[in-house]
Parts: sequence; structure tokens; C-alpha cells
Amino acid sequence: MPSSSQTTGKFLSDHELDAFLLLGDSLCNLDIYYLSRFLAPDRFALLAASSLSILVSGMEEGRAKKESCAEEVVTTSDYGIGEKLAKFDRPEDAYIEVLKEFLQDRGIKRLGVPGDFPVRVYQGLEANFDVSVLDSPVSEWRKVKTPEEIEAIKSSQRACEEAMRVAIEMIRNSRPSGDILILEGESLTSEKVKSAIDVALLEKGCEAQDTIVAGGKDAADPHCSGIGPLPANSPIVIDIFPRSKRSRYFADMTRTVLRGEADQKVVEIYQAVLAAQEAGIAAVRAGATGKEVHAKVCEIFEEQGYPEREGRGFIHSTGHGVGLEVHEMPSLSEVGKTLKEGNVVTVEPGLYYPDLGGVRLEDLVVVRKDGCDNLTNLEKRLIL
Amino acid sequence: MPSSSQTTGKFLSDHELDAFLLLGDSLCNLDIYYLSRFLAPDRFALLAASSLSILVSGMEEGRAKKESCAEEVVTTSDYGIGEKLAKFDRPEDAYIEVLKEFLQDRGIKRLGVPGDFPVRVYQGLEANFDVSVLDSPVSEWRKVKTPEEIEAIKSSQRACEEAMRVAIEMIRNSRPSGDILILEGESLTSEKVKSAIDVALLEKGCEAQDTIVAGGKDAADPHCSGIGPLPANSPIVIDIFPRSKRSRYFADMTRTVLRGEADQKVVEIYQAVLAAQEAGIAAVRAGATGKEVHAKVCEIFEEQGYPEREGRGFIHSTGHGVGLEVHEMPSLSEVGKTLKEGNVVTVEPGLYYPDLGGVRLEDLVVVRKDGCDNLTNLEKRLIL
Repeated sequence: MPSSSQTTGKFLSDHELDAFLLLGDSLCNLDIYYLSRFLAPDRFALLAASSLSILVSGMEEGRAKKESCAEEVVTTSDYGIGEKLAKFDRPEDAYIEVLKEFLQDRGIKRLGVPGDFPVRVYQGLEANFDVSVLDSPVSEWRKVKTPEEIEAIKSSQRACEEAMRVAIEMIRNSRPSGDILILEGESLTSEKVKSAIDVALLEKGCEAQDTIVAGGKDAADPHCSGIGPLPANSPIVIDIFPRSKRSRYFADMTRTVLRGEADQKVVEIYQAVLAAQEAGIAAVRAGATGKEVHAKVCEIFEEQGYPEREGRGFIHSTGHGVGLEVHEMPSLSEVGKTLKEGNVVTVEPGLYYPDLGGVRLEDLVVVRKDGCDNLTNLEKRLIL
Repeated sequence: MPSSSQTTGKFLSDHELDAFLLLGDSLCNLDIYYLSRFLAPDRFALLAASSLSILVSGMEEGRAKKESCAEEVVTTSDYGIGEKLAKFDRPEDAYIEVLKEFLQDRGIKRLGVPGDFPVRVYQGLEANFDVSVLDSPVSEWRKVKTPEEIEAIKSSQRACEEAMRVAIEMIRNSRPSGDILILEGESLTSEKVKSAIDVALLEKGCEAQDTIVAGGKDAADPHCSGIGPLPANSPIVIDIFPRSKRSRYFADMTRTVLRGEADQKVVEIYQAVLAAQEAGIAAVRAGATGKEVHAKVCEIFEEQGYPEREGRGFIHSTGHGVGLEVHEMPSLSEVGKTLKEGNVVTVEPGLYYPDLGGVRLEDLVVVRKDGCDNLTNLEKRLIL
């Protein structure tokens, strides 16, 4: 992990801090999970000083000692949370008292907190400590993945591919009937395909919050997840972004397929997206900026006669980082900064037209010194 | 929904505010989901003034207009986020500028924010607005469930029961062999039962983050989720707390079962937990405090000869609220406040001894004027 005590030590000394304090539940606050490797649905505090301490509820002590990588696990019960809750009207004030004693016991005077630190606790600590609001270094550390993290993401991407195969196979096995697809005598719906995807992911220890299986007009809105019967003769966008329940790392991939007869325009759009994606992937390397990669993709679309215009065409950015969050830094967009070796990003150009639908292709790549490694193996084919 | 514009209006006028501002992603910040009914993994702003406005990214506009109950959907693109990101070094500063213009356009001067509001944005707004940090009224509103919310929770509890039946059936169908259980020629493990639970939940449109299937020593730690072969002749605690993927409402229930020969002490402990649970459920009514319900449960344990001592026995609180979060207010504990009609709480006493393991029984009830409605139908039986 890049979050070694040396890395933390440098950050603290650069900012003349005794410690950096994070607060939140580690299901939602991934910086806390990243540092502690302790997954908890309830809020806890993480103190990064010369060593790593976590302050959890008494209930969580056993599990925290087993699972977290913190050098020290202390509990709110150790600091008399029960008595303090009885003393203060507002539970948050009792918690702030516990936090104060916890920090004072560790000799903390100059304290850093991240921008998303809760304002009430910040105000509660201000009187007793010299508190600075700083850009969290953790999101910076999280951008560059270790080999172990890349393996975890790769493993999620394998599950993702397996689920994608299941989805594509269902569509391949359906038959066009008028405007819709029929499978086993019934209309093949977005819901049925998503359900099969969910089961396939679960078998691989992954879960997906909000899979997209969208055809026709639904596919023309890149954030619409799709509903009802899937269309024949029209592109169907399948975007799967599962997380491993164990490692907590995401993967992300998109394929677009069509069952039936394809309009020539749709075939051309698909080819344009494929060419733009190939150019985007070729442009990814350490030292290039996300902005340059995005510009390259836009350039290819322009050249092929698909400019972005009035909210039609290529209407989103080229890609985003993937890790403990499905959308994290760095981005491949207008504001994309310099890429570093070990960044993991999607490359996912798409074209969207209300009359034709949408086409998107998305691979997941690791930035390397002279290019990138594509973590995605699945073929790309429009017509099934 | 209790979060009507009248309710919001009263809160605003009581605190002399023009508006209340929430900020976060609605997967994690359930207050925002509760008010907007817009589920988004990326941060957005919700402004509760005379009407409800949300400020989302341009990408989310279509879906937000379709899915959210906000009267107004505006986008960061409407406020030139692209240009501002290019102008400011730190993306957060660009976002704060967007927020300022959004608030100024709506004539907001006196602004309330909740205690968990991110400190950096708070500091960014302070210069231009009169910002007060207040206890969010939303968590108060969320405590009392509407009939629609109770239906949603009940539906999740039905899925939970179905999954519980599947789990118990697996254990019933196994046979004791020495210290472990054998099913279809293989050791029956915690992992296998959890996997079957996951599939059963998925079929009902639910998902569970961290199911507990724990026997033997694992069961003696109420937060241990269980690992490896399940024991014969020893209580196995099964605690399932799924969320509906669609409604987002949780359910929660626990059963304890045993396959093989039960030690007489275990049978007595089970009877004690059952009696404590029955007394707890009987004590739940509007007007009683959570503290009183918890005290009643503790009293029954004392009477039956199971005092809490040195971290053994009944080592947690009696229950907690359930809704959009699996642990929410009100609590049935030392600090439990007065219960109101429409609260939904668990009643889940348990006894834990390292040498014998653990027993816990948990039902989910709705607080009513003269008692409570139990949302849980599944039988309670130790020995299978």
C-alpha cells in the first residue's frame, strides 16, 4: 500500500501536523477503508499519526482487532461514551467529548482534517486543537494502484466479463419479432437481462448497484438504466460496474450489441466509436494528460463526421478512474490532469442520437510508462 | 411523506432560515435520498426552501427529472462548471462557486446546513451567506414511518424470511458428523449458507451487505459474521438484514438454530432469550422510552440468572430503528428516548458466552399507540 507510515509521515511534516483525522463509515468513506482495511457500516474515527489508530464502538472491537490494519484499536466505551451520552442532550456532543479525550491522550495539538470532514465535529474540536482543513492526501494515494489493487480490480473485471457473456448470450438466443426480442416465448426485457447479470456476478462474489441494459431511446440517454422490452434491430448498451464483496474493488465495462437487422447508420456509428476508443487507448500513457486523451477521442469523432452538437453525439467525458469507487480520479476529460503509472481508468467513448439510440464501448486499462495494459478481454461485436 | 413542504416550511421559519442545504451522494446520505427520492452515486446538492430544488451534474439531468420528486432540477453545467473547473486549481473551489451562484439566484441569504455537512464547502459559503449548523430535521422525520414506508419495510422483511427459511432448511438437511455438519457429502460452511441467502434475497430484489451465519465461538461475538465449517450440537446465529434494491428500505431479523444434540445449558439460554424478547416486545408502545424497553429486557435476564458481567451475557442494546439505514433512530438502549407511533424498531436480545456460543432472536416491529405490530412471521425454534 502506498499509505505507508513513511508516506503519512511526509504528509504530516509537510503540513506541520501532529496527526490527520478522518471520520465516517468505511462503506461510504473509502479513504477510511483504504487506510484501515476495516469495513464497517457505522461511523468510526481514524487517526493517522506516527502510527495508525482507530476509535470504534465497543461492539466492533473484536472484529476491528481482527480485520483492520491499524496498529491500535480503541473504543468509545474506553472513553466512557455511555456516561457521556447520559450527560449531554445531543449524542454528537458526547461523541465530540470522546474524540477530544482520545486526541489529547495521544498528545495531538495540530490536527489536519479533510474537506469532507463533518462541520459540527470540526467546530467541536476547534476550541481545543489547532485544526486545518486540507486536501486529503488519501485520494491522491488512491489514484496510483499497487499490484495487489490491480489484481483485485482485474478479478472484478473477470466477473464482469462473465456477467457480460451471460447477458450477450441471452440477447443472442432471443429472436426478433416485430420491434421486440422474444426469448423462450416471452418478451426479453431489460429487467430479465439485469437479473441474469446479478446472479452471474453473485456467483463470482461481486455485486452491482445499477447495471445498464438499455436499448432504443433509453440507450440514447447514457445514464438511463433501461426498462421494459428490449428492442430488435436497435443497439442495446450493456454497462456493468460490479464491486467485489470481499476486496471492495470495482470493475467497469460496456458493450453494445444488436439482434436483428442493423441500420447502416448504426453500423457506421459503431465503427466510429470503436475507432475513437482505439485511438483513446493508444493515447493513454504515463505523462500524457487526461485532457489530451479526451481531446484525441473528440478529434477522431470530429474527423469521422460526428461532432458533439446540441447535446447529441459524444456528450460525456472519455473516462474515469476506477478503484474502491466506480468513479474516482484521475479523469479523462476536459480537466484531466497528468496520468501516472498505476492509474486505472476506463476508456469509454459513445455516440448518442435520440432517433438512432446509443452506442458505447468501454474497456478498463492500467496506465504504464509507455502505454497501458488493457484489463478487458471480451470481444467487441455489434451484430449478434 | 412527512417531509412535506409544510413540514419543511415550519422548520425554516422556526430557525429563521431561507433554506436548508444538503450535500452528498444519495446512496450514502440517506437524508438526501429521503427528501429527493433520487438515487445517485455521485454527489449532488439539495436545497429545501419554499420548494425543493436539486443541483446535479449535466449527465444526471434526464434521470433526475424523471426519478426525483424535486420541483426543480438544475445542473452544474447550467452554472458553467466546465469553465470554472478550468479557472480554479482545486475542483472543489469551482464547485463552491457553482453552489454560490445557485443559492444567490434563489435569493438565499440565511442558510441552514446539517452537522455532517462537509467543512470545506461550509467555509466556502460562510463569506457570502449567513450559515447555521443545525441538527438536521430529516433524521427526526425519518424516525416516524409513513404507511408506504412500512409497506416497503414489510416487503423487505418477507424477502428476509424467505432467505432465512432457505438457510434453516440447509442446516436442517445437513447431518452432524463429529463436531461439524455435512450436507451432500461436504462440510456445510458459513460461506455456503450465506451464498444461498444471497441468491434467495436477489430473487426477491433484495441485497445484503454482511449477513451473519456464525456458530460456536464465532457466535459468541455478536458482530462476527462467521467463517468456515458450521458446528454440530452448537447454536448457529443467522442474522439477515437485506435492503430492497428498488425501495432502498431495509429489514432485519435473527434466528438461532441448532442441528444435533443440544446441551441443556444452551436450551435454557435459548428459553431465557425468548422470554426476554417477548417481554421486550410487550413493552414497546408509543409513549414508552427505548430506555424502559431495554431495562425490561435486562430485568428479565437478571431474574433468570443471566446478568451481564465482564463482557459476557447480554452485551448489546435491545434494538435499533430500521428504515433507509439498517441502524437508525430510535434506539432501545440505555439512552433510548420516547417512542412514537410509526417508529420501526428491532427487538433483539441475545446472550453470549465464549464456552457455549451465542443465542440471539430478533423481530422487527412497528410502534403503535397501545403496543406494536410485529412485521416478522417466521417461527422460532432452536433444535432442528
